[in-house]
Amino acid sequence: MSQEFFTKHRATLEQAIEITRCRDYWSPYPEVPSGKIYGEAAAAAGQAAFEGRLHQRFVLQQPGSVADVGDEVSPYGFGLGVRYPKTELDQLLPAMQASLPAWRDAGAEARAGVCLEILARLNKRSFEMAQAVMHTTGQGFVMAFQAGATHAQDRGLEAIAYAYEAMSRIPPHSRWIKPQGKHEPLRMDKTFHVVPRGLALLIGVSTFPTWNGYPGLFASLVTGNPVMVKPHPATVLPLALTVEVAQEVLAEAGFDPWLVALVADSREAPVTKELARRPEIRLIDYTGSTAFGNWLEEHCRQAQLYTEKAGVNSVIVDSTDNLQGLVHNLAFSLSLYSGQMCTTPQNIYVPRDGIETEQGWLGADEFAQAIAEGITRLLADGERAAELLGALQSENTARRIAEAARLGEVVLASEPRGHPRFADARVHTPLLLKVGAEPSDRYDREWFGPIAFVVATESTDESIERSRGSALAHGAITWSVYATEAAVLERTQHAALEAGVALSCNLTDGVYVNQSAAFSDFHATGANPAANACLCDAAFVANRFRVVQTRRHAV
Amino acid sequence: MSQEFFTKHRATLEQAIEITRCRDYWSPYPEVPSGKIYGEAAAAAGQAAFEGRLHQRFVLQQPGSVADVGDEVSPYGFGLGVRYPKTELDQLLPAMQASLPAWRDAGAEARAGVCLEILARLNKRSFEMAQAVMHTTGQGFVMAFQAGATHAQDRGLEAIAYAYEAMSRIPPHSRWIKPQGKHEPLRMDKTFHVVPRGLALLIGVSTFPTWNGYPGLFASLVTGNPVMVKPHPATVLPLALTVEVAQEVLAEAGFDPWLVALVADSREAPVTKELARRPEIRLIDYTGSTAFGNWLEEHCRQAQLYTEKAGVNSVIVDSTDNLQGLVHNLAFSLSLYSGQMCTTPQNIYVPRDGIETEQGWLGADEFAQAIAEGITRLLADGERAAELLGALQSENTARRIAEAARLGEVVLASEPRGHPRFADARVHTPLLLKVGAEPSDRYDREWFGPIAFVVATESTDESIERSRGSALAHGAITWSVYATEAAVLERTQHAALEAGVALSCNLTDGVYVNQSAAFSDFHATGANPAANACLCDAAFVANRFRVVQTRRHAV
Repeated sequence: MSQEFFTKHRATLEQAIEITRCRDYWSPYPEVPSGKIYGEAAAAAGQAAFEGRLHQRFVLQQPGSVADVGDEVSPYGFGLGVRYPKTELDQLLPAMQASLPAWRDAGAEARAGVCLEILARLNKRSFEMAQAVMHTTGQGFVMAFQAGATHAQDRGLEAIAYAYEAMSRIPPHSRWIKPQGKHEPLRMDKTFHVVPRGLALLIGVSTFPTWNGYPGLFASLVTGNPVMVKPHPATVLPLALTVEVAQEVLAEAGFDPWLVALVADSREAPVTKELARRPEIRLIDYTGSTAFGNWLEEHCRQAQLYTEKAGVNSVIVDSTDNLQGLVHNLAFSLSLYSGQMCTTPQNIYVPRDGIETEQGWLGADEFAQAIAEGITRLLADGERAAELLGALQSENTARRIAEAARLGEVVLASEPRGHPRFADARVHTPLLLKVGAEPSDRYDREWFGPIAFVVATESTDESIERSRGSALAHGAITWSVYATEAAVLERTQHAALEAGVALSCNLTDGVYVNQSAAFSDFHATGANPAANACLCDAAFVANRFRVVQTRRHAV
Repeated sequence: MSQEFFTKHRATLEQAIEITRCRDYWSPYPEVPSGKIYGEAAAAAGQAAFEGRLHQRFVLQQPGSVADVGDEVSPYGFGLGVRYPKTELDQLLPAMQASLPAWRDAGAEARAGVCLEILARLNKRSFEMAQAVMHTTGQGFVMAFQAGATHAQDRGLEAIAYAYEAMSRIPPHSRWIKPQGKHEPLRMDKTFHVVPRGLALLIGVSTFPTWNGYPGLFASLVTGNPVMVKPHPATVLPLALTVEVAQEVLAEAGFDPWLVALVADSREAPVTKELARRPEIRLIDYTGSTAFGNWLEEHCRQAQLYTEKAGVNSVIVDSTDNLQGLVHNLAFSLSLYSGQMCTTPQNIYVPRDGIETEQGWLGADEFAQAIAEGITRLLADGERAAELLGALQSENTARRIAEAARLGEVVLASEPRGHPRFADARVHTPLLLKVGAEPSDRYDREWFGPIAFVVATESTDESIERSRGSALAHGAITWSVYATEAAVLERTQHAALEAGVALSCNLTDGVYVNQSAAFSDFHATGANPAANACLCDAAFVANRFRVVQTRRHAV
């Protein structure tokens, strides 16, 4: 059956491998939530499936389930009431270890077939997934469908492509014939076995559980490692659905379904620290706070660790020949999902004397005002604003906005907003502050959420230097620069190479610095403190398996 | 110039890349120390060059040299008297960092060209290198020529091939065109930059400074990282020669020669701990003791760390149809370079009731006796023994032999030997002990040097299980098994997959378990405590560089 899956999806896999090398646009999972593509009944069926989950037990095929946990609350204002199995690790871990040899020995093609079928079935359930992502993370529906379902599937496929390609480079056999001058050559037959590291742990993040989770999940699984999925207690459902689909496909293919297992916990009794330190855990993928990421690095030395932590993203504004495009683009970036993306800009550096634009010189204060007005304009329509902003995943972010308002001159105040359909949704518009470059400790740290600073500097060179220093000290995943002169773009790019940050230049059209496209954009670099890995590159997969060889004299 | 170097060596590089994927036999660096290959004058010239180094200052092209260090003593019994520059790190490190951008921006082809030319010139100096390796490590001359010169060059080329291939997979540019239904597609131009991690540190080992050192050195250098070479104070000359050649080629190609720099120290004032913790150091390659490897892992978290530490290698003897071949092969493996290889077998597990052979049943005592006699026979000829055993690199190993002799029943006593040409050479024949399986703490830890144990077990299954447990607890790089039944080989291989150890089956001919051939054998697996990496695979190179991208709207 897994061989059938492989045959079925082989062309997709081969195209994915090819595309990672040219990095053009490609996706096999349509991002438009349209009935024409997914079937006219799909949207309603997805919503019904989601609603059918509410206030029910979520049943999974895995040993060691001893009780129920779960207290998710939609950021749109209602409790989900889904109860997940609480797991006895001393039962689950040995069971997963016992399942490993069959999964390892099935080989790369069989494992890739299963993983690709999991993604194909997840794709069919994208409307249901979108509901689950929306009502746990707070993303607007379309974003939840895209980032939470189809783009996450892209990222999963990308990881499978890299990992499959890496395994394919290990020949199963070789005959080694070494000449010995006049004597008979030495002949050895060798076999090479891809072996997994052991059990893998995926620690999910509350805001992008699938998009940030699928790369590690599929990279570990396809290389032979059973995967324990530990979601954030606020955002369990999207990963529980993922585990359910994975278990269904694994079982159909004749493997133990608990090769992918859910470990749900609660805020009151978290299990991540205990789990991550278990000696059986040999791989950990983590997205989340810097503090917990540092704790993992300190304490989980038995495991290979891939972390995406926090960062402080910069925008360097020097000059523009399209002020309106700049303002719209930046306003959109700051508003999208209320700034709850690891790619959202935070600090917008502008020379205090102002910038040159095609409409003439613009002072720093006027520039800040223009951005504020851009945001206000963008969010004027209630329906559009609701979709764009989504809701705040955590109450803490609302508190953080209030706290940040004291840090500088408020250019645009954050305000709570009603939602057209969900009366109790936690919606707040962005806060925009203006500050001087010193003291920098006010703005030069992560303020997660819809909180941005216009930072007035002496010059663009100071803007670049502060961005560079900030990225090296605190990490950064994105930089954006606006400049009309090639030399300024060049200097910024030079600093970006040193700071290890992806740079977007003069974005004024329908691509935003927050967006990172699978197969084309490398998400994070692994070259500054924001992340020790990149989604997705060869380094992200190469160390998830090892090669053990056997050799003997050839007969 | 570097482009010329690339053109000159391109075919070699392409063949190397191809061969890593099929893993057949191949080498561009002839291993026979023959005048027909290297020129009739090469041997004498190499010896003269070596002798010309003795009692001289070794001059290198690098800033920060403030004094001299060096107190190498040949294991063959004379002081080398070479004085190396002692380096002021606060001068050298900033200079190396300042040299980085030009090396990075030169691109992968230019860097590969330089690295390949370094190897080509090192190959021409293989006789000189053999002398340097022989008189620091104690290897016999032919082994020093092979393992110290040509095979090390192979391993360096292998690392360059893997790294170049990995960099080649990053396209320099892409145009990303995303359809937007009825609207104009989104178009982005993207550029992708390979950037190095920073400064790399190679910590050399006393026994195989080049063979174990070149993979990390060349993998880091070709990916854009300047490399600081920190040799073991007992074995500086081989790496100093390497740095000299590297600096010569770098300067010719128009780069700062100190992109590869030597940091020599002394036993009295070691600098490794200070150096390895410097924040500028972002990559460390280390071969050596487990204790120091663990220290590095604990304290050097700012760097990506590749370690090869100690292990305990097992031989599992179940049965054979070629007793003479087994005995000769094992006796050779135990004698080669006096067991000072990380691949040398230490524990030979035999069922206490004995084994089946084509000559009939052989008791465990008789088996041990047969191995002892095999060693005695092999070393009967003084000239051959001198070449095979080499000399003990360290006086500590001689002391260790004496200490180990108390651990069990001495089957073959170690004895000092005279050397046909070097009166004061430190030559000792192997010690072979016989012990019961319990208590295991006598033999189940590394006894570095010519020290081996015949361990009597209940059964082959116990032998396999003890080998497995030992590898998982203490690490192992090689296993060897002798068995006539496929089922026993299968069970051993299954255990080897779990223990992450390379397995050799029924070696009775001219290939020995100690030997690991570049391009074909994966040396170490990274899957047990003996090493966290493998020489050489994709994982060994993939994380030495990162990718930073720039994108903008396409016009």
